[in-house]
Amino acid sequence: MNNFMDRDFLLDTPAAKKLFHDFAENMPICDYHCHLSPKEIYENQQPSDISQLWLSGDHYKWRAMRSCGVDEKYCTGDASPKEKFEKFAYALQYCIGNPLYHWAHIELQRYFGINTPLNAKTADEIYEKANKVIADGDFRPQSLIAKSNVKVVCTTDDPVDDLKYHKLLAQEKDFECKVLPGFRPDKALNISADGFAEYIKALGDCANIEIKSYKDVITALEKRIDYFNEAGCKVSDHAFDCPPYAVADDDEIENAFKKAMQGEIITRHEGDAYKTAVMIALGKKYHQLGWAMEIHIGAMRNNNTKMFNQIGADTGFDSVDDGEIAKPLSRFLDALCVEDKLPKTVLFNLNDKDNTVLATMLGNFQGTETQSKIQFGPAWWFLDTMDGMTNQMKSLGNLGVLGKFIGMETDSRSFTSYGRHEYFRRIMCRLLGRWIEDGWYAYDEDLVKEIVSGICYNNAINYFGF
Amino acid sequence: MNNFMDRDFLLDTPAAKKLFHDFAENMPICDYHCHLSPKEIYENQQPSDISQLWLSGDHYKWRAMRSCGVDEKYCTGDASPKEKFEKFAYALQYCIGNPLYHWAHIELQRYFGINTPLNAKTADEIYEKANKVIADGDFRPQSLIAKSNVKVVCTTDDPVDDLKYHKLLAQEKDFECKVLPGFRPDKALNISADGFAEYIKALGDCANIEIKSYKDVITALEKRIDYFNEAGCKVSDHAFDCPPYAVADDDEIENAFKKAMQGEIITRHEGDAYKTAVMIALGKKYHQLGWAMEIHIGAMRNNNTKMFNQIGADTGFDSVDDGEIAKPLSRFLDALCVEDKLPKTVLFNLNDKDNTVLATMLGNFQGTETQSKIQFGPAWWFLDTMDGMTNQMKSLGNLGVLGKFIGMETDSRSFTSYGRHEYFRRIMCRLLGRWIEDGWYAYDEDLVKEIVSGICYNNAINYFGF
Amino acid sequence: MNNFMDRDFLLDTPAAKKLFHDFAENMPICDYHCHLSPKEIYENQQPSDISQLWLSGDHYKWRAMRSCGVDEKYCTGDASPKEKFEKFAYALQYCIGNPLYHWAHIELQRYFGINTPLNAKTADEIYEKANKVIADGDFRPQSLIAKSNVKVVCTTDDPVDDLKYHKLLAQEKDFECKVLPGFRPDKALNISADGFAEYIKALGDCANIEIKSYKDVITALEKRIDYFNEAGCKVSDHAFDCPPYAVADDDEIENAFKKAMQGEIITRHEGDAYKTAVMIALGKKYHQLGWAMEIHIGAMRNNNTKMFNQIGADTGFDSVDDGEIAKPLSRFLDALCVEDKLPKTVLFNLNDKDNTVLATMLGNFQGTETQSKIQFGPAWWFLDTMDGMTNQMKSLGNLGVLGKFIGMETDSRSFTSYGRHEYFRRIMCRLLGRWIEDGWYAYDEDLVKEIVSGICYNNAINYFGF
Repeated sequence: MNNFMDRDFLLDTPAAKKLFHDFAENMPICDYHCHLSPKEIYENQQPSDISQLWLSGDHYKWRAMRSCGVDEKYCTGDASPKEKFEKFAYALQYCIGNPLYHWAHIELQRYFGINTPLNAKTADEIYEKANKVIADGDFRPQSLIAKSNVKVVCTTDDPVDDLKYHKLLAQEKDFECKVLPGFRPDKALNISADGFAEYIKALGDCANIEIKSYKDVITALEKRIDYFNEAGCKVSDHAFDCPPYAVADDDEIENAFKKAMQGEIITRHEGDAYKTAVMIALGKKYHQLGWAMEIHIGAMRNNNTKMFNQIGADTGFDSVDDGEIAKPLSRFLDALCVEDKLPKTVLFNLNDKDNTVLATMLGNFQGTETQSKIQFGPAWWFLDTMDGMTNQMKSLGNLGVLGKFIGMETDSRSFTSYGRHEYFRRIMCRLLGRWIEDGWYAYDEDLVKEIVSGICYNNAINYFGF
Repeated sequence: MNNFMDRDFLLDTPAAKKLFHDFAENMPICDYHCHLSPKEIYENQQPSDISQLWLSGDHYKWRAMRSCGVDEKYCTGDASPKEKFEKFAYALQYCIGNPLYHWAHIELQRYFGINTPLNAKTADEIYEKANKVIADGDFRPQSLIAKSNVKVVCTTDDPVDDLKYHKLLAQEKDFECKVLPGFRPDKALNISADGFAEYIKALGDCANIEIKSYKDVITALEKRIDYFNEAGCKVSDHAFDCPPYAVADDDEIENAFKKAMQGEIITRHEGDAYKTAVMIALGKKYHQLGWAMEIHIGAMRNNNTKMFNQIGADTGFDSVDDGEIAKPLSRFLDALCVEDKLPKTVLFNLNDKDNTVLATMLGNFQGTETQSKIQFGPAWWFLDTMDGMTNQMKSLGNLGVLGKFIGMETDSRSFTSYGRHEYFRRIMCRLLGRWIEDGWYAYDEDLVKEIVSGICYNNAINYFGF
Repeated sequence: MNNFMDRDFLLDTPAAKKLFHDFAENMPICDYHCHLSPKEIYENQQPSDISQLWLSGDHYKWRAMRSCGVDEKYCTGDASPKEKFEKFAYALQYCIGNPLYHWAHIELQRYFGINTPLNAKTADEIYEKANKVIADGDFRPQSLIAKSNVKVVCTTDDPVDDLKYHKLLAQEKDFECKVLPGFRPDKALNISADGFAEYIKALGDCANIEIKSYKDVITALEKRIDYFNEAGCKVSDHAFDCPPYAVADDDEIENAFKKAMQGEIITRHEGDAYKTAVMIALGKKYHQLGWAMEIHIGAMRNNNTKMFNQIGADTGFDSVDDGEIAKPLSRFLDALCVEDKLPKTVLFNLNDKDNTVLATMLGNFQGTETQSKIQFGPAWWFLDTMDGMTNQMKSLGNLGVLGKFIGMETDSRSFTSYGRHEYFRRIMCRLLGRWIEDGWYAYDEDLVKEIVSGICYNNAINYFGF
């Protein structure tokens, strides 16, 4: 039996060990998409205990606890930090096969120096020990980011955000990591959502435009893109359950927009027509500025109405949708490509049934501006697992050019989640190492090093132009 | 080369061998969903020969034979038992990679003591030997169930069933296995099927209700649920190609119901609205009684009209559907959850493209009544294979809490099919054993034993409350 | 580390090595579906250099190059042969995990005797060496086909083709391979495509029929089928993004046809009704003649409008569709089966999410005319990879009868692509060898040899009746 999660964790061939330890392990991190709070990074507060660090905002952990019958009190409720930790440790011991189990132990090992497996029996001992390590050490966000060798962080920000904390962080002398904004205009696109009219009003105020038509929405967003661009932004981000694509003339879209602003219900087609028109305009603007457009496809959010009413969004009640995506996605990308205005694009899917669709879609729209201009984003959220990552890389390897992959981002809200890059790198080196070990790829030290360090860090830096 | 299907069949690591032989092999069986006939169990007839036992009702075997060009005469027709066995042996030898091949040999080894591989050359010898073992031994249903260490069997029964044989079996002193009914009201839901009106009439008669409206259907079903509950029933079962979900007001549903009762054609939306209303009412009733609601999604039945007209349903002409299920399933579960009336629920899929959808859907609706209240059912029917089971457990492991999984049922019509539990356990121990062997999960004897024996038996017993 | 792609490439068990070297390696090839040009085979020209051989028509290679940012000039443009080869070598070195990498090296080894791995550093050396091998040797199409031990080639031909080159080839004394036509009437079915009316006119001219109604289309196609049949054709081929199935009466179909002939837009339902009627008529004709009907499902073509306008179809801008296929495919096959007119049928999918749907669909419609009358076609195009082939064979193994599989075809436009049969055979022997090595299938030399050589060649020869 191998040792539990030791230095060769997941590295099952000599080639895998070499790839990881020689080419991957020490590469810096480029976290080109995450949900870290720039405010928290700037304010740089030391956490009080491991429960605050681990359990105050992590819906992955809450879901595991709820699946073990743990009461909400111990998840998002008012139980004590110690009780919450105990309940989490209880749940974790049943999470065999879950990345949460590996993430937790990587974090315990790397940030806390704790090698004891966490379970119900060891929970109290580890709770005390971890809290002592926190008390004796430096667990402030900027220190954790620096310790994790992170060179770039792209956060996720609303167009109306003033980016105050990004600007303040840019002036911090002792903090070398670039913390850049990411432009996420979902609220301006979700024309059928509650609060759309209010949001459009706020967007107009922020952009100094009185928004009377859908074209004003585009103008306002373009102004905000310029604002973000000045703050160093180089990525946008969009979330769709299904990519919208519907063609309509201006009057129809205008009419749909007016109805939505008055709180009237619009049809699916009308909503898609609005989204299509706005997305095409945004794509052109991104292209002009050299930004990358990230598209996250397939999340079905807020499924539990009772819990949504009780504790709101992003609390662990989302799951995976299963709509048809190939045709609308193709038509959307083509609409930009035919005008030579398709920006660099990163496509993420949440349903692994779409791996083959995405990995082959890339090849339809590549370009010469950069290598692998259209990227298959790394396995995301529910797919951010051993199997999910392996399958995403196999799909890209089989159907595209894996050597030009921009690799991992955390998509995380936690400052100790950089262990997920290590996890990804071990899995990547395991996969490539196996292929090399078995004589499926000719070993050439320079090339293999270039590919591995490229997927770890260099490809992303070059692709985004950080 | 390893020995053919020996005691370590499928167990490819020391850890897997330990898990299976120490923690799994001797656990009893809880078969919480199957299609065994309570009448046959009660009547307890010795089979005449292995063809009667194996080939008189097994559509898996018929499909394999038909795929080898075998005439229907040797499947469901009037060929002699020996001829049928020979044709089956011929087909089986080409079934490399098919679970049928493993099931057949596990059954030959465990129930007949025959270790010779079955193929065209050995068919006659094995036919004679197996029939001698039957003639010299006890192959009556109750003996096979007892020998297989089965403690609970849940059959699949129509609401109009009087459960006579369940009651008789409950009084059998020498037969210790609990044979409980399972409530399967598909005929009351399939509003567009031939014979719906006649069925509703029969349901009303059985429940002593004159059914004039769809609400009377609900009342009648509720009465039958109470009747089943008194007979020890704790599970319901529902089959949908796609989960129905459509909202409509009472008048619309009533109108659809009336049209259907008069043999008129109703729309898909009308049918879904009726099914939704009835399913929500049933879900509430199940919740009240503490039953589990099993939902089987994705079978496309009776594809071959010619053969359906010739030999009827459940004869091997079903296959896998591929509709979108995420949104309607989410809305249905939420409709019950928002009223705090969601029962324990087990979700089964027949299309493996839905693994990720189901394994993430669970987490949206967990509760505190029991651990992993919403379960991802074991790989079912066409997915009840090495790969299908492994993938279901990997999905649940990656996305949920595998340690709380209620494990296997046979879904079978055959009294020697309990070998499928052994097959499942070997595959489960192979998977978990590999993870432990490779240092991916910290080995703790108590915990690992709890998890393995839990998935084998204990979790199901606790979950259903048998 | 294993040697790079040596004689035991992909063969990771003793059983796999034995299966491949003893039973598979030397079997002839039956290429029952490809896109080779009968004209090129007949004209039998020696290529000028490896770039002409490899890069003049291979969209797989162009896609890889474009994904590395290579300009179109080096793909389909006017760069020199050497420059194109260098750009390809550059791209190939990043294609870790891509079958293109293995195909290229198998071809270099087998046809050129070059064992050096191809990359940017070795490109010029290999370019010179390969061209010398071409100059000194015989790389004419007929020689490559003969050297590859190919006994049958089925090309892909339009109904209006006069099959001149097939007839000429049949008279060649020194060329033993049968080059048979394949009937592909897509243009007669694609009622909504540009040029439909012109095509129907040409079809009528060719069949000596004035086509005034959709029934005349059927008559014309039937005449061309007879013509193809006389030229030795035994296979048809159809490509659908989604299988069409819509029932309509004659008048409705006639009306749709008339509209289409006048260039009017017709609805999806009208188009499907037309296609359904024509396909059912064609299926009956195929059945009458004992042809096999091949159906390729799931390609989404010509996604990039700009490039389509620039360089046309089949240039590397196709990808994978994701529509629902189970219900229409079932209804179409049933419509023929219920009249006892279902021909032998080979079902191919381009989206691996459909593996389970297809592998279970087969079993609904088998017959006694031949063994495994309904076949699950080998992993096709984008799925023609290590993982794609393995998964297709696992699906067929799990859900059907793998021992009766008709195996591989190249689907290729290249005369050196017969290495793909070797690649397939290595992967097949790897899979079956592993199962045998692990004791999952009882080793019987005769049976295993029959199965392996059957999948390599014999099953296809018997199935199609070549």
